[in-house]
Amino acid sequence: MRFFSDNAAAAHPEVMEAILQSNRLDTAYDGDEWSARLDSAFSELFEREVRALWVSTGTAANCLALAALCPPYRGILCHRDAHIEVDEAGAPGFFTGGAKLMLLDGPGAKVTPEIVDEGVRSVRKDVHQVQPAAISITNATEYGLVYRASEVAALGDLARTHGLAMHMDGARFANAIASTGDSPADMTWRAGVDALSFGFVKNGGLNAEALILFKTELADEVAVRRKRAGHLSSKGRMLAAQILALIEGDLWLANARASNAAAQALASAAPGRLVYPVEANEIFLRASPDEALALRAKGFDFYDWGPGEIRFVTSWDQDGDDVAKLAEAIRAL
Amino acid sequence: MRFFSDNAAAAHPEVMEAILQSNRLDTAYDGDEWSARLDSAFSELFEREVRALWVSTGTAANCLALAALCPPYRGILCHRDAHIEVDEAGAPGFFTGGAKLMLLDGPGAKVTPEIVDEGVRSVRKDVHQVQPAAISITNATEYGLVYRASEVAALGDLARTHGLAMHMDGARFANAIASTGDSPADMTWRAGVDALSFGFVKNGGLNAEALILFKTELADEVAVRRKRAGHLSSKGRMLAAQILALIEGDLWLANARASNAAAQALASAAPGRLVYPVEANEIFLRASPDEALALRAKGFDFYDWGPGEIRFVTSWDQDGDDVAKLAEAIRAL
Amino acid sequence: MRFFSDNAAAAHPEVMEAILQSNRLDTAYDGDEWSARLDSAFSELFEREVRALWVSTGTAANCLALAALCPPYRGILCHRDAHIEVDEAGAPGFFTGGAKLMLLDGPGAKVTPEIVDEGVRSVRKDVHQVQPAAISITNATEYGLVYRASEVAALGDLARTHGLAMHMDGARFANAIASTGDSPADMTWRAGVDALSFGFVKNGGLNAEALILFKTELADEVAVRRKRAGHLSSKGRMLAAQILALIEGDLWLANARASNAAAQALASAAPGRLVYPVEANEIFLRASPDEALALRAKGFDFYDWGPGEIRFVTSWDQDGDDVAKLAEAIRAL
Amino acid sequence: MRFFSDNAAAAHPEVMEAILQSNRLDTAYDGDEWSARLDSAFSELFEREVRALWVSTGTAANCLALAALCPPYRGILCHRDAHIEVDEAGAPGFFTGGAKLMLLDGPGAKVTPEIVDEGVRSVRKDVHQVQPAAISITNATEYGLVYRASEVAALGDLARTHGLAMHMDGARFANAIASTGDSPADMTWRAGVDALSFGFVKNGGLNAEALILFKTELADEVAVRRKRAGHLSSKGRMLAAQILALIEGDLWLANARASNAAAQALASAAPGRLVYPVEANEIFLRASPDEALALRAKGFDFYDWGPGEIRFVTSWDQDGDDVAKLAEAIRAL
Repeated sequence: MRFFSDNAAAAHPEVMEAILQSNRLDTAYDGDEWSARLDSAFSELFEREVRALWVSTGTAANCLALAALCPPYRGILCHRDAHIEVDEAGAPGFFTGGAKLMLLDGPGAKVTPEIVDEGVRSVRKDVHQVQPAAISITNATEYGLVYRASEVAALGDLARTHGLAMHMDGARFANAIASTGDSPADMTWRAGVDALSFGFVKNGGLNAEALILFKTELADEVAVRRKRAGHLSSKGRMLAAQILALIEGDLWLANARASNAAAQALASAAPGRLVYPVEANEIFLRASPDEALALRAKGFDFYDWGPGEIRFVTSWDQDGDDVAKLAEAIRAL
Repeated sequence: MRFFSDNAAAAHPEVMEAILQSNRLDTAYDGDEWSARLDSAFSELFEREVRALWVSTGTAANCLALAALCPPYRGILCHRDAHIEVDEAGAPGFFTGGAKLMLLDGPGAKVTPEIVDEGVRSVRKDVHQVQPAAISITNATEYGLVYRASEVAALGDLARTHGLAMHMDGARFANAIASTGDSPADMTWRAGVDALSFGFVKNGGLNAEALILFKTELADEVAVRRKRAGHLSSKGRMLAAQILALIEGDLWLANARASNAAAQALASAAPGRLVYPVEANEIFLRASPDEALALRAKGFDFYDWGPGEIRFVTSWDQDGDDVAKLAEAIRAL
Repeated sequence: MRFFSDNAAAAHPEVMEAILQSNRLDTAYDGDEWSARLDSAFSELFEREVRALWVSTGTAANCLALAALCPPYRGILCHRDAHIEVDEAGAPGFFTGGAKLMLLDGPGAKVTPEIVDEGVRSVRKDVHQVQPAAISITNATEYGLVYRASEVAALGDLARTHGLAMHMDGARFANAIASTGDSPADMTWRAGVDALSFGFVKNGGLNAEALILFKTELADEVAVRRKRAGHLSSKGRMLAAQILALIEGDLWLANARASNAAAQALASAAPGRLVYPVEANEIFLRASPDEALALRAKGFDFYDWGPGEIRFVTSWDQDGDDVAKLAEAIRAL
Repeated sequence: MRFFSDNAAAAHPEVMEAILQSNRLDTAYDGDEWSARLDSAFSELFEREVRALWVSTGTAANCLALAALCPPYRGILCHRDAHIEVDEAGAPGFFTGGAKLMLLDGPGAKVTPEIVDEGVRSVRKDVHQVQPAAISITNATEYGLVYRASEVAALGDLARTHGLAMHMDGARFANAIASTGDSPADMTWRAGVDALSFGFVKNGGLNAEALILFKTELADEVAVRRKRAGHLSSKGRMLAAQILALIEGDLWLANARASNAAAQALASAAPGRLVYPVEANEIFLRASPDEALALRAKGFDFYDWGPGEIRFVTSWDQDGDDVAKLAEAIRAL
């Protein structure tokens, strides 16, 4: 029973069907009819004109955005546990040409305006120190917390004050929206977000993510950078089709609600063990090595996060019985 | 009737079926069972141990290889019509960190040992001029010519003499193999090739290419560079499955033979108009603007290559009737 | 008797004296009194507000300018014999993060609006090909020709038409000004130049060059890039002092006139042998290997440029007797 | 009375004299007689064969070394207060092509084998996290502490264990040698150092630093990178001459002893206020804003380091009376 990562789950049948349907001769790259629909589909979702580009990984979405928002000689403020810092093999340095990630603290991989402000103020304003150009936040965070739209807006205000662009890594954006009930628009551009990595791979997609540019004037540059990074697939229709299958109806939200609900079921089984509140689809529990062993012995697969901590991630297709069994097993510890 | 590009064709049904079959929970990234089979499947095909990594585009395969073969401060010899020079948006400069493409001439985008040797010798051996570190050739070439294994071997000898690594852009490698009858081994490592971009997307694949490393000690570095470039898909199994569907049987060769045969049918209709011999699946014809117009009026879609030249590319699934009609139409010009 | 390169000549005594005078405690980097005078000194010379930054090499001046004028994913049009292409070890690729030099032809390393226009038009306007962002010309050229202000202005007009920024590599800017009699202002910003590498090292300076930004809003970025490239010397006053010694009087022009005059003396001795008109301080002569040998036997040191061509470069301090002897020897061939 | 920085001091008269003496026609770049002597002069100093390259700034020396020791996709362990991290405008990211600085703690900007070991072990050994390739230490540190040769050797052992290359930023290497009495050889290659940035600008030089490569096989690559970074001065003889003036006798040591002695004189005046032991030429004192004001009122110039801390740096030419007055003033606080 796998609770290891939402990354590894299967894609949703409707997504697969969409890929099959798109498998016919059309114009190459992003000249096809599916890709052509992306801008309008996302513009509707976000209640304003946006530009949307498919890419095949979250790392690509994140780092194309960062490269467009930060020149090589400046820096990007982010949490020290951010995916871009700890799990992308230095991709931000590669895509930006050497920009610096400027690390912030904060419980649960979440930053506050005060933390960001201190980060900005700690930089001497001279030519010897790298000056920040952007801030990147992750929603839901790497520890399963969510920013509410109002929290993002407070960060957006601060970013504008300091002249910083703002990026949101939304590998689990759907989970954050499902959790908060905030609208996609309130959560992003109305709160000051310039670019969003809108994740689908962890939420029923196969291998398509979308980079949403609210600063639409960046789209042409990003399109070039996408090609230059080897991310302009010849048959991009198969990427666009996946995304459309998820967002042209409610599938993206339904999937996120399912994984969030599974996480809540687990959380409610372990109130005293939670390292962080469970607000999306990740559960971090305190558990001794023996307890972890006991769970594994019952057939549950998960991640040893750190000394005395274990991580479960639920997926859109998590089996209900498995969840019930794991909840039971946790209670029984 | 589309003769525009093999890029845009549909993927083969067996490839789609393989993707569907692979759509189930497994370890993320390249930890799945399909990815695990790549090394051995290609090792068998190439009659020696190789390391094989899936990527989603030819540009990624090419440029990851080049970055591993050439440091930022050196150069890569290639034909001035090479895809890496004219159609990858500067990706080699991005992936290598600024290495220089050193352009060679030669009819049909094909280079000879003499041309390469002159290219090497034209560089002053000092610190002011960029020194070459590698050579990249394309087989089949951008103009539909093929290198025979013996020709590659002659280039390989020269490369070794000058201490150059050798890369082969095999976006249409299958067509070259089908055309020459040379073995994959003879065409590559036995001829001195260190890394091969083995293309599938133009040959029945959906969005998977393979980077084959004969210099196997580069594989760990390339794996890191792949991640760092945002090319390590979470569900890499869908990429591996495509490739396996093509190479574990003869499908890759059957597809290439089909597109080559369609090209021959067209070539035989236009002996006096051929700009280059037709050796793979591309046909370049001399045709006046009026003649091009006449062909388009009959419903044929193709590319205006240059003044008085038009290009047709055939695909693995090119309709036989369409080919016959186009051949007829060309004869009728 | 050395006619090898103006690079290698001694610095002018007034320059050395200025260095000595500046050797006292002052604020580090560019916070000293000499550096503080650069902007106004050059603003006077150019008859408008400019920003001026010292660097220690022409390569640094050129490439800092190019990095500010061209993003990593675009290109710079230049002559295929330009110093940035053939003699800077790929520095433009390093400083820009992989931008492409797009090579133009033209006799004597000089380009015309027609050549540039054709270069621009040869690029397909899509995401697959690198789009040009800037043009760089060298004045005087690598073959000792000069652009007159009116010629630069014609290129500037074309650059604006195509939305290109314009850089001038003025490693021998003084020689061009001395040769044409055009004003520094007419030769640069009035003709559309955005950034000028103003060379002093070949003209009596020791190791100081100036990067002049007519697009003054680039200065802050360039200052950061200068530091980031390791070019912000702690005791920058020694660089500023050299430059001021040359430009606060007429020394820069006097030096250039001296070397130009020496070149003219040689040119007049070899009317039938000149490969290019002699317009600055370089002389390219047709000479057989035996003739070259004969000249060397008489003690003249120079460069074998190519088959049957030799190059002489005169310096600000070229000994008059040496020049007379060389002229005599050339006549005697 | 300036105690602000050793950066800003004048160059030593013998250094200036050497520059004047070298100001005559010779081969350009590093083909001159002074540059030719560097390898042997440093080989003698270090008691083994080394390769030595002049550059004009410490940032250039540091980052050329790091680029040769660490590929773009790996990382460099260093203290979080290291000059390369906080005072070089992101130059390591630029020179290496995006390698990551991996920050370590430790009092006085000094690291121990335990700290480094923990830093290495904190990295997950997979493709998602940046793996370290090198360690860089600063001697004397940014806070005026020194590593003894035995301490460097302990770090060197650890580095070898983990397969890491080792770089020493020796902006104040002379001060460290003068302070410890260890030999240059013991302090560097015998302790496992692969490359040393040997600083002269803070120690009587004008604008020359040396990059010493004990891993001599890196020299050719570094020479290319130096050119490519715009650091190959045409009249490099003026850089080589400065260095030779300092190291061919004892001047480099005499200068360092003078500045160290001045620092000791100040330290002995403030035993209770020292933030760190004074082991080189920097003194960090606890002082209230009022006390700082009082010292400034007496004409002393220095740096406000942090809340309640001030920094004095002594130079090779620090006036003895000034030092006595400052010591007196500190005692009087």
